[in-house]
Amino acid sequence: MLIPVTDPKDPRLAPFMNVRDRDLQRSHGNAFIAEGESVLAVFLSEGARFRPEALLIADNRVETALAWSPPEDLPIFVAEQTLMDAVVGFPIHRGLLGLGRRMPSAPLADLLADRPRVVVGLVGIANHDNMGGIFRNTAAFGAGAVVLDATSCDPLYRKAIRVSVGGVLRVPFTRLDADKGVTNALTGLGYRVLALSPRGAMRLDEVPTDRPVALLLGTEGPGLPDAEMAGAETVRIDMAGGFDSLNVATTSGIALYELTRRMIAGH
Amino acid sequence: MLIPVTDPKDPRLAPFMNVRDRDLQRSHGNAFIAEGESVLAVFLSEGARFRPEALLIADNRVETALAWSPPEDLPIFVAEQTLMDAVVGFPIHRGLLGLGRRMPSAPLADLLADRPRVVVGLVGIANHDNMGGIFRNTAAFGAGAVVLDATSCDPLYRKAIRVSVGGVLRVPFTRLDADKGVTNALTGLGYRVLALSPRGAMRLDEVPTDRPVALLLGTEGPGLPDAEMAGAETVRIDMAGGFDSLNVATTSGIALYELTRRMIAGH
Repeated sequence: MLIPVTDPKDPRLAPFMNVRDRDLQRSHGNAFIAEGESVLAVFLSEGARFRPEALLIADNRVETALAWSPPEDLPIFVAEQTLMDAVVGFPIHRGLLGLGRRMPSAPLADLLADRPRVVVGLVGIANHDNMGGIFRNTAAFGAGAVVLDATSCDPLYRKAIRVSVGGVLRVPFTRLDADKGVTNALTGLGYRVLALSPRGAMRLDEVPTDRPVALLLGTEGPGLPDAEMAGAETVRIDMAGGFDSLNVATTSGIALYELTRRMIAGH
Repeated sequence: MLIPVTDPKDPRLAPFMNVRDRDLQRSHGNAFIAEGESVLAVFLSEGARFRPEALLIADNRVETALAWSPPEDLPIFVAEQTLMDAVVGFPIHRGLLGLGRRMPSAPLADLLADRPRVVVGLVGIANHDNMGGIFRNTAAFGAGAVVLDATSCDPLYRKAIRVSVGGVLRVPFTRLDADKGVTNALTGLGYRVLALSPRGAMRLDEVPTDRPVALLLGTEGPGLPDAEMAGAETVRIDMAGGFDSLNVATTSGIALYELTRRMIAGH
């Protein structure tokens, strides 16, 4: 449903106004904003867990938006580029924005009801680039879910969605309460929780396949807290020596490459 | 050799002045600037191919710098934080900068004289984050060298060095002239050149080990040009389907993980 707009104060555009300021203040309420062609393609696809409530697009992007066959009743606000920039508060070169609505965090047991063979657990991931990169890799290798601790940053932050190339909109995730440990919660559901460590007890390609596995990832600097390490088994990625340094998103890519092909038949 | 400095116009500090402007103008001549604790630790280590000509550090970082046992004759300019910020032109929170000098690009045959079993070839990598990430992974997995085409960006750009966590200062690299193809140059030296493609002819873990391999990486969007693909063999990383999307730096991590353990004995 294409709706031309010409007034930067149009109340229907309120959720798109001053996006960057509201990112900083985290004052989106339960709304989130997704941007760009690759991300909106996922947002409007079959595989998406979140569906857009509205789009705001530049008038030269109408063809792109209609090619995704959006639902008939989806409001697509169409603006001149300058109006769009004025509403959003900065130049939106790509001319494509989508508005989504968060869902309440599902109970962990529901999220993992089908016991996916490989899932990801995140502890204290504070950087949105890393968060986005991890979701991108999780989607690419078809791992089943992401479980976040209370201190990890927001996967639905605009930049994290963008870096994930929409992976955040596909992969089921939930956030645990502050009093719950990720390792504890996952071992309680029968998962073998794997923590990467340069002195890990087994190589990544030696992980037994008898139980589903959860790959635990923490921040690069301090690593995983003792309370999370306690119930985990340590695995290592053999490196050259003298330079044992991988970014956490890259680490997730390597580990999920190895684990999904071991754990998921026909992968 | 600790040298206290108090004058922001001190001519000995000229190479450190207005770093960001000169980054943008690429007017460093053959000098480059490295920053931060992890990077300088590599810069001053045994394994470094480049050695600093001078350091500029904040007066609260003297202990850090001396712990690296720098050469006696290395000038270490010590400034108050505010003076350091004034010289550099922006707040240097980490208080640690090193000045390096580029070396002329080595001829490819010299770079690969020992025929390292795994090397990396880069075609049109334009993003300094990706450049840094690829060098970080190359150093981590001990691949032997990086060969850049004429259009790839500068690994010694400050941000690329930082993202590489110093990997750029360890891994030997060279840049080919504009009229030379990476694939052609490497096949000419006996390398099996591998180009990643979702429809690759073989899986990454099926690559024969009879000849040394070169992993060819290009930009995410357009991919590798036909001229580079022509002499390459295609390999694939199996993914979940429906979301075949990996960042090029992450791709390098996964491919180097798999190739170095196949190709390098005892890895």
